[in-house]
Amino acid sequence: MPADALLGAPLNVVTAGPELFSAAVAAQGVAVTRVDWQPPASATGLASLWCDTVDAANRLALDRLLGAQPVLIDVRPAIDVVPGMTNDMVLHAGPPIEWERMSGPLRGAVAGALVYEGLAGTYEEAERRASRGAAGFDPCHHHAAVGPMAGVMTASMPVFVVENRAAGNCAYATLNEGLGKVLRYGAHAPEVLERLGWFRDVLGPALGEALRRLGGIDLRALIGQAVQMGDECHNRNRAASALLIKALAPELAALDLAPRERARILAFAAGNEHFFLNASMAACKAALDAAHGVPDSTLVTTMARNGTDFGIRVSGLGDQWFTGPAETPQGLFFPGYGPADANPDIGDSAITETAGLGGFAMAAAPAIVQFVGGTAVEALRYTRAMYEITLAENPAYRIPVLDFRGTPTGIDVRLVAQTGILPQINTGMAHREAGIGQIGAGLVKPPRVCFDRALDALVQHRARAATPNHRH
Amino acid sequence: MPADALLGAPLNVVTAGPELFSAAVAAQGVAVTRVDWQPPASATGLASLWCDTVDAANRLALDRLLGAQPVLIDVRPAIDVVPGMTNDMVLHAGPPIEWERMSGPLRGAVAGALVYEGLAGTYEEAERRASRGAAGFDPCHHHAAVGPMAGVMTASMPVFVVENRAAGNCAYATLNEGLGKVLRYGAHAPEVLERLGWFRDVLGPALGEALRRLGGIDLRALIGQAVQMGDECHNRNRAASALLIKALAPELAALDLAPRERARILAFAAGNEHFFLNASMAACKAALDAAHGVPDSTLVTTMARNGTDFGIRVSGLGDQWFTGPAETPQGLFFPGYGPADANPDIGDSAITETAGLGGFAMAAAPAIVQFVGGTAVEALRYTRAMYEITLAENPAYRIPVLDFRGTPTGIDVRLVAQTGILPQINTGMAHREAGIGQIGAGLVKPPRVCFDRALDALVQHRARAATPNHRH
Repeated sequence: MPADALLGAPLNVVTAGPELFSAAVAAQGVAVTRVDWQPPASATGLASLWCDTVDAANRLALDRLLGAQPVLIDVRPAIDVVPGMTNDMVLHAGPPIEWERMSGPLRGAVAGALVYEGLAGTYEEAERRASRGAAGFDPCHHHAAVGPMAGVMTASMPVFVVENRAAGNCAYATLNEGLGKVLRYGAHAPEVLERLGWFRDVLGPALGEALRRLGGIDLRALIGQAVQMGDECHNRNRAASALLIKALAPELAALDLAPRERARILAFAAGNEHFFLNASMAACKAALDAAHGVPDSTLVTTMARNGTDFGIRVSGLGDQWFTGPAETPQGLFFPGYGPADANPDIGDSAITETAGLGGFAMAAAPAIVQFVGGTAVEALRYTRAMYEITLAENPAYRIPVLDFRGTPTGIDVRLVAQTGILPQINTGMAHREAGIGQIGAGLVKPPRVCFDRALDALVQHRARAATPNHRH
Repeated sequence: MPADALLGAPLNVVTAGPELFSAAVAAQGVAVTRVDWQPPASATGLASLWCDTVDAANRLALDRLLGAQPVLIDVRPAIDVVPGMTNDMVLHAGPPIEWERMSGPLRGAVAGALVYEGLAGTYEEAERRASRGAAGFDPCHHHAAVGPMAGVMTASMPVFVVENRAAGNCAYATLNEGLGKVLRYGAHAPEVLERLGWFRDVLGPALGEALRRLGGIDLRALIGQAVQMGDECHNRNRAASALLIKALAPELAALDLAPRERARILAFAAGNEHFFLNASMAACKAALDAAHGVPDSTLVTTMARNGTDFGIRVSGLGDQWFTGPAETPQGLFFPGYGPADANPDIGDSAITETAGLGGFAMAAAPAIVQFVGGTAVEALRYTRAMYEITLAENPAYRIPVLDFRGTPTGIDVRLVAQTGILPQINTGMAHREAGIGQIGAGLVKPPRVCFDRALDALVQHRARAATPNHRH
């Protein structure tokens, strides 16, 4: 088409990159379609990270991630097994945060847990104690642990113990409470605390006994099966939960308990579609912790949210968090709720995406769009996009509809910076006020700034390593 | 391209239809690619079946098929519940057959069952009795029952009772024995009969008690879930079995049995990937029996094989079987076996395809190609082809990867004749000799002659109805 014909017809401009471009066109009265793309941050610095040293470090970290052998071996009270746990400590999801900056559901869960532990007599007293700093807060992630949504873990709560038999490390997660009014969404009604008491007194000990008799359950094999059964093991755990129950049921049925209690244990598990979620998270944590701490590696080993901040950690950057304001998920709401009710993104469950499951494995779980919104075709697209920012395909987790391609695994900060593609997370949505609970489910991404900051730190680290004084 | 250029270049001829065409070309030394297609049989007669009367009949039959509400309500000894069952009767898969024409695995199962029932002291005595006609043979299908592979059912065997709550009819199937040496593949070793004894004395009564306490399990809902979890509920029942165990486990765990027996029951179920298969078959049978017997309907209500003959029945043609020689499946063999070892197609399990599951739902179960051969893309193609010969899409059984399209359901003899497309069945493969068992799994189709014969009968029936004497 000759240039005059091009400019003679009505213009329809597509812009990518800085808003300045589109604003200049729009100011002339021309229709503009903005493409959701941003140029790579810190392009000069990024180049310094494409080198043999980083590649070799990433290979080592990846080998540890893909080579992990997570086995569910026990359920024990947190105080007995979680490293550094104390009787007055409240662990929570996401990066570190103080009471003042906590969102509603996290405050609700913290205060509810203080009442559950007997550290406060009433919810109001618990809030006062917490606000005065009488409870010690710490991220689950600092204790080899993870928790969905508020992610609150206290001393007497029974926790899954997942041993990574390849590396010898363990990871921990509380038991999943099901849907409705539950502590992890900030609910703290009497029935919530009563259920936690039953977990402590009956369910936890029973699951622990069954697991010890079984000699453990291979979670890599179980997740591999579940991914071929339509689960992505974050927001869809239907198959994995059924497989876990199937594995536990013979030993649970043989326990020396009242028949009614045996039935209640199995009915509770059967009635909870997310029974497996917390085990999935602990399996991912056990694998990623083994991949953490490899010098020079740009592999993301943590993505977690506390309801206020989103934070990531990178294998080669030690225990430093790179945070930004948590976004609010977009998706489907339960009747009576809408976007104005939604709390910003919360929970450690993005550990599943960090390990190549969840939003990264949505192609394996097209039915999940009924829960988080979208179409089956979009589910395929999310997974395909994630291959662009990951270093490997997990041979243990294969997606039938992609002709058994492994799930995209191992987020590389370099690839995120280079492509401008952010990790795709699917998630439950909490009401922003304490005490209400889940109001829907949807999709969310980390704030870009987390990756920009991590990239800057990696570039600086590289620059220091490249100067003579730092060579070794 | 001008005609002379066409004939000047080397010819590569593609032929469809009668072999005469391709033979004539090949005889002139020209390369021929034969397309696997045959022209519709009885084209003139077929036209008479495209009429309002048949369409209305098919709508009624379809309504009954799709409207079925199969609920697993009990497990009882066959003699107590199966209509027309007697103590010396041996029910078997497929259309009627006498001992002389039975294949190896069916003979093995029949004789094994006579020993199990105490009707013969030894396997050899059982063979003698059976060959002398001392046992009464009858198809399971004549007794509202179905059985996988040999499909042998005798009086004391515990059977699933599936009630179709929409129509009030019931269907029955034995319990699945698992893999390895099992009666349904013609094995009759002591451990096979010992397992059947445990079914009769422990497993059957326990399952029955649990089901009665539960008030039944909605199999339509369960199958609908399983289809979204990668099962097609014929040769892949991993999800459905886990869901069935999940539903039964609370009641089984509460039974007043020795702890070891409770554990054995749940471990047996958990160790059998096909625990659900026989319930799936009974659910399909209960739905199709309700759709059977609609005058003028061309809907296929039975496809079944006895290891020698393949037989179909049609809703509007009463209890008449249309048979042809069973073909031998093609697929993957277990190590040490090959095509020469395979028995012709056997079993009532093609009731699943008849109801829109199994081979018809393979798009939902791409992982099954690891078992029956092929690729995930082929699994999609099989399902897409079956939409060509079926009258409906089952809204209760939706396939995520096809954007939740219902499974192709309700084979129409007219559409099979018109398109030349035969139903796609996936199946286990039995060794042709009694006593050996399963040697692989694969794909198979009915012989075309079954449908040609059914079409002829439908056309004649229509012609009679159209003459004045038969008008009503």
